[in-house]
Amino acid sequence: MSNSTLIYGKNAVIEALEKGDRQFNKILISSCSRADVKIEQIKTLAQKNGIIFQFVAKEKLNSLIQEGRHQGVIAQLSPIQYIELESFLEKNKDTLAPVVILDGVEDSHNVGAIIRSCVCAGIKGIILPARRGVLINSTVEKTSAGAINHIDIIKTNSLVNTIQKLKENDYWVIASDHHSEQNYYDIDYKDLNFALIMGAEHAGISRSLLKLSDFKVKIPMLTNFNSLNVSNAAAIILFESVRQKFAKYNS
Amino acid sequence: MSNSTLIYGKNAVIEALEKGDRQFNKILISSCSRADVKIEQIKTLAQKNGIIFQFVAKEKLNSLIQEGRHQGVIAQLSPIQYIELESFLEKNKDTLAPVVILDGVEDSHNVGAIIRSCVCAGIKGIILPARRGVLINSTVEKTSAGAINHIDIIKTNSLVNTIQKLKENDYWVIASDHHSEQNYYDIDYKDLNFALIMGAEHAGISRSLLKLSDFKVKIPMLTNFNSLNVSNAAAIILFESVRQKFAKYNS
Repeated sequence: MSNSTLIYGKNAVIEALEKGDRQFNKILISSCSRADVKIEQIKTLAQKNGIIFQFVAKEKLNSLIQEGRHQGVIAQLSPIQYIELESFLEKNKDTLAPVVILDGVEDSHNVGAIIRSCVCAGIKGIILPARRGVLINSTVEKTSAGAINHIDIIKTNSLVNTIQKLKENDYWVIASDHHSEQNYYDIDYKDLNFALIMGAEHAGISRSLLKLSDFKVKIPMLTNFNSLNVSNAAAIILFESVRQKFAKYNS
Repeated sequence: MSNSTLIYGKNAVIEALEKGDRQFNKILISSCSRADVKIEQIKTLAQKNGIIFQFVAKEKLNSLIQEGRHQGVIAQLSPIQYIELESFLEKNKDTLAPVVILDGVEDSHNVGAIIRSCVCAGIKGIILPARRGVLINSTVEKTSAGAINHIDIIKTNSLVNTIQKLKENDYWVIASDHHSEQNYYDIDYKDLNFALIMGAEHAGISRSLLKLSDFKVKIPMLTNFNSLNVSNAAAIILFESVRQKFAKYNS
């Protein structure tokens, strides 16, 4: 992440929190920080504004900003404005608005490439968990080739709640899981308001989310080397949905 | 690229060239280097062994190895053994052996992800130009998740000659080009010995290669944001070929 999306040092972070005109991803606090008045103030302001703060090893902070300059506090900002699920649903209530849910995808390049494919494939929203995986940072922005500005991005504190809410709103939840029986191309996407869940690079999709899914699909392979990059897997499924839509228009 | 695949300093590079047991990608020489006896020796040894050397700005070398240590010479090694097109064709003469040609793809993450998808999709060979784009380095190796060890990788001094040779051997050449009329899913891949060309991230496919192609295909999109990541585009086309093959088995 470039420095342009980081604010560091206790006073600078407090000032940004008080001013309130920046979009925060999260605030990282060194686990070695002594609990002083300013750290307490940061925690209080963060809680008040619904911003996540996490205690992390000092080395993590040093990898982002040279030691001695961050004073144990770094705020990660977002280059975009996240929107609320409720606003997204309200805005799209009269139309199909398929979404992609990233369950803890950790590599910014992957998230950027997925958002790019999503925009090309007519996906209307991306849903990211606030605590795990990456949020929108400058690497995601760059890798997305600007696509982050052409899609609604929703940050949620609970993917379980979000998926339940989507289901109440007549979404069909599809999980990409290579242990599944069903093939991704056997789903009929044409008139389906779908929410496609893609799992983290190594861990895959959480069991709690798999349980909530209406379909679990795999991408069948021609070899035993069963290991696709997550952004490639997403592209394959999304563009099967596009292929079916074009086939429908032409038939 | 990590240091494990770089050899630097005049003596070290000469020694590796003389020993001859390492696979070189190319040798970078600072354009500020004075023509001394050792640089001349490196050039002679490289030419004798068919290894490319290129004169580059000193800053390029400094970005790979701290200034003062490389003495104006860095050799980039390959973690794998490339094979010759002739051996590849001979080895696969009795079977379909589809290949993917990367025409100057510049990002190691993209090349790694493409190789990974290729292995999953039953592609038998990857063809890379020796002078443009990236060759196999440690970032490609890592991003490929080990896939570089499950496919033949061919390095060529001329993609034009290589494609002509493939055509003489009954390959059908497919170019991925978003200006095309034909859609990628309108090709019948099932019994086709194909060579799929993917172009560089910004420049696309060279005109000389487009001219040699039997088919030019586009990936139709649902929005005007017409910009897929090259590894995602490759995955979409390759897995359409896989989908068709499975459909064939099941019909």
